[in-house]
Amino acid sequence: MSTIHRSGEMERGELRWQDVQVRRYGPDNSGAEGATRQILVGDEEGSPHFHMRYFAVQPGGHTSLDQHAHDHGVYILHGRARLCLGNEEHELAAGDAVYISSNEVHQFFTLGEEPFGFLCVVPAKR
Amino acid sequence: MSTIHRSGEMERGELRWQDVQVRRYGPDNSGAEGATRQILVGDEEGSPHFHMRYFAVQPGGHTSLDQHAHDHGVYILHGRARLCLGNEEHELAAGDAVYISSNEVHQFFTLGEEPFGFLCVVPAKR
Repeated sequence: MSTIHRSGEMERGELRWQDVQVRRYGPDNSGAEGATRQILVGDEEGSPHFHMRYFAVQPGGHTSLDQHAHDHGVYILHGRARLCLGNEEHELAAGDAVYISSNEVHQFFTLGEEPFGFLCVVPAKR
Repeated sequence: MSTIHRSGEMERGELRWQDVQVRRYGPDNSGAEGATRQILVGDEEGSPHFHMRYFAVQPGGHTSLDQHAHDHGVYILHGRARLCLGNEEHELAAGDAVYISSNEVHQFFTLGEEPFGFLCVVPAKR
């Protein structure tokens, strides 16, 4: 079924939607304030092919060191980060778009004093 | 292969990336300035499951009246629009996330004086 999630008030520099649950995400050591995940398009929306999620990482925090069989499409919405991607490092800022192919090791570290937030698209079956 | 498309300078209120081709999109009557499409994750990036595109529509313009067998995940990046979705109309603004299920008739009309821009995720095979 088609669904609209309305943008809501920001909280501690992270985006929120009016009817989307905020979940804690990542390793316990991901930073003093941790990281959060919100599912914008997923199983609840009945999306059979892809899912779209929003992740936010507070200053000083990071995502898990991940390596998956599935790929990711990432779009940076706010803040800055250092991305470790395979053997390389890249600095990312709002507006950058990243394709992470399958089995590529990756980890995001927030840079600066603003929370880092990004959309992450993945296959529904993974 | 993993790929990073760096955000570039905006042009006429639309987002640009440093190495992404800007294509015209939509009906010839989509507005005086037309609409544009840029593929951020697609065949060139070797993405087998999903594609992520950016569309921009100038003030007074609109997208095609579309009905597809595939579904769409939409995230509004800037501007405002009226979305005709099935028999309903919705007003959308930056930050809203929309899931358009398969075979749902849909069309976006830019509202106001700012260009309307959104990310649109679709299955790679469609």
